[in-house]
Amino acid sequence: MTGGPRWDRRRLLRTGAAAFGGAGAGWSTSALVAGSASADSASGSASGSVAAPTVIAPSPGAETVPPEGNHQPGVVTPPQAHLALVGWDLHEDATVEHLARMMRLLSDDARRLGQGEGALADTEPELAAHPSRLTVTFGFGPRVLRDLVPASRRPALAELPEFSRDRLRPEWGQSDVVAQICCDDPLTLAHARRMLVKDARAFADVRWIQQGFRNARGTLSQGTTMRNLMGQVDGTVNLAEAEPDFAPLVWADGTSGPEAFAGGTFLVVRRIRMQLERWDRVDRVGREAVVGRRLDTGAPLTGEAEFDEPDFEATDRFGFPVIDPASHIARVRHTTPEERFLRRSYNYTEPDDTRSSGEDSGLLFLAFAADPARQFVPVQQRMDEVDRLNDWIVTIGSAVYAVPPAAAEGGYVGQALLEGTGEQP
Amino acid sequence: MTGGPRWDRRRLLRTGAAAFGGAGAGWSTSALVAGSASADSASGSASGSVAAPTVIAPSPGAETVPPEGNHQPGVVTPPQAHLALVGWDLHEDATVEHLARMMRLLSDDARRLGQGEGALADTEPELAAHPSRLTVTFGFGPRVLRDLVPASRRPALAELPEFSRDRLRPEWGQSDVVAQICCDDPLTLAHARRMLVKDARAFADVRWIQQGFRNARGTLSQGTTMRNLMGQVDGTVNLAEAEPDFAPLVWADGTSGPEAFAGGTFLVVRRIRMQLERWDRVDRVGREAVVGRRLDTGAPLTGEAEFDEPDFEATDRFGFPVIDPASHIARVRHTTPEERFLRRSYNYTEPDDTRSSGEDSGLLFLAFAADPARQFVPVQQRMDEVDRLNDWIVTIGSAVYAVPPAAAEGGYVGQALLEGTGEQP
Repeated sequence: MTGGPRWDRRRLLRTGAAAFGGAGAGWSTSALVAGSASADSASGSASGSVAAPTVIAPSPGAETVPPEGNHQPGVVTPPQAHLALVGWDLHEDATVEHLARMMRLLSDDARRLGQGEGALADTEPELAAHPSRLTVTFGFGPRVLRDLVPASRRPALAELPEFSRDRLRPEWGQSDVVAQICCDDPLTLAHARRMLVKDARAFADVRWIQQGFRNARGTLSQGTTMRNLMGQVDGTVNLAEAEPDFAPLVWADGTSGPEAFAGGTFLVVRRIRMQLERWDRVDRVGREAVVGRRLDTGAPLTGEAEFDEPDFEATDRFGFPVIDPASHIARVRHTTPEERFLRRSYNYTEPDDTRSSGEDSGLLFLAFAADPARQFVPVQQRMDEVDRLNDWIVTIGSAVYAVPPAAAEGGYVGQALLEGTGEQP
Repeated sequence: MTGGPRWDRRRLLRTGAAAFGGAGAGWSTSALVAGSASADSASGSASGSVAAPTVIAPSPGAETVPPEGNHQPGVVTPPQAHLALVGWDLHEDATVEHLARMMRLLSDDARRLGQGEGALADTEPELAAHPSRLTVTFGFGPRVLRDLVPASRRPALAELPEFSRDRLRPEWGQSDVVAQICCDDPLTLAHARRMLVKDARAFADVRWIQQGFRNARGTLSQGTTMRNLMGQVDGTVNLAEAEPDFAPLVWADGTSGPEAFAGGTFLVVRRIRMQLERWDRVDRVGREAVVGRRLDTGAPLTGEAEFDEPDFEATDRFGFPVIDPASHIARVRHTTPEERFLRRSYNYTEPDDTRSSGEDSGLLFLAFAADPARQFVPVQQRMDEVDRLNDWIVTIGSAVYAVPPAAAEGGYVGQALLEGTGEQP
């Protein structure tokens, strides 16, 4: 729709900024913003010519996420500040060709938007100009795998078993396709979300959109564990990419599963509503006992610092365990190295309690794992049996997705599953 | 509830950062984050002692907004990234004493939270630890002024006249009290909003909460005009604090109005829904004609750069005006210097069109003015009569508030109105 010389100037400026260490330079980049400012406020009269970039400092708004090999971005990517999780159901008569066309379109949108370019036929390309580490991560639900992917190429995605404490609401339930859209800038995110929803409309209906947030970019230093709306440090025990276990625990490898899914992973989505009003009645000592960690530092009650190993055998002077065996930390702690996965959760809040049955706030628990049945389900089952935290949380939404490997050059996400590698459809 | 030595350490660290130029140093501060990281991840064993701050760089999360003399913060403050606008209706039997108690409590909350401290009886003080330029700005609606403020101290707040194109919905209508909560960090904001709502509960019911956003802190350089969800540069013509007209056009001075309101201002809130689906059908040439500005630079169609003066007399080679007299820029342009005010708008989006009649996205138009009837209403009336933009927008919420001066030392916002200066209640 637009294109042309104006965009060329902007692209040049961005490339200039990248050459100075901007794009992808990570969290330590200083937040000087001359780069994007020039792009935004430069007079139209300079069109086509670029003044010598005497001062071009990288802007966090200009940062892009580099390709992750054969993995989709948004998994290993340090979590951005904002999330829009879009769930679609394919139209009733959708065929594999329909889904392929949809994924080709959305993959192209994701690639362009992630580079700070408007999508094809973008109606507001200026709103894409600050990518701010935008990533889009696509996944397929069980119905897509069953109906549209041949058995020979089908990854083994088991739906989650029923958990007795779940109070699932259909409006937050399993969808056919998901896009995890993450971005440090809320305006860039809103635009990307709208473009993807528009482009999917011919093929699918939006089932839900779940918005989430963490701290703003730059509020915390890299690696600081986020806090949830209960005030707890949330996600201390997480897989780090540097660990040797990371790859086998996160990425499908094509030996135990189909080659077409190698480099993919699985996503578990749980919408966990917090009963904050009732949590308010619990004092700090009580809260720390429920969780098994100190509220201020996140340290286990037997330790001094957040990442100290909890000592579940330690007792107090009365002989009682310092960490209650029914506490959250005791119940969800992995009992084998396999019971670990990559957490990438976001807070959510729908604060307007005048139009619903009350404030709906909590955690959008997002977990990536090579095998959720082996890595996630046992943990969730222990929590379902006993966990003192259950008195204040309830899961109201649940879904699982197969997250295909990255699109091949010139291809689209999911192509190897839908068309086969080198096979004819 | 918490308090104690842990917090002292944190405060020390923050003070240390401020001494290095952090707090309030403005947009040019680089986003190194050692300050807040130390506060967050320091081991509990160090409690009470502070290591020599060899490297304490200011974090944007540690920034606080300095007092603005006798004005409340959040008016002149460069707009933060996120907004929660909370409207309350006082309980039916509320007296001036009730409102005074509520405002004393909320003013204290606002002061503490703005400094990165938990509110009194804060249940999650850790969520307050990164103030991120948090400001809370309070206002009183017409019913409060009429029923609870004596005539001698009552600022002249006229309700807005009816505009023929408004399609007002009661759920977004006038409330008795408003808090404009703004913050660069969405998690800090969510916590502050919840604390204020909890503390007001004994006195008032939430009528609505309107959430909004602009670009993330650091995406744009200071002074760059924001874009709205239609992709337009929005708010080019705005009052700058440096202009000599700023004070008389924004602040009540105590001569034309009551002395108790000197340093106050008025806030106009308009929830302007954008019909983005229909806007999508308009091409760029059409959009630029509707608005009268170029989409890329925001320049008037007769100019080269955003801040060029539009030339409404200029004609094209066919003799037609370059800027359509019915375009948005032509209609809302101030016709006298008095028809200007301080815009401080936010984008909003309620994207989940599965649970409402469709996506509700648009602009939370916020304007501060010393006299809305003289400064804002004529502009809005011209727009109501003719404005090509009206085909794609509709105002669904509207309210006005008197924004009292800042709380006196040890006092609360609104005290001079409710109790009188030096008068007995």
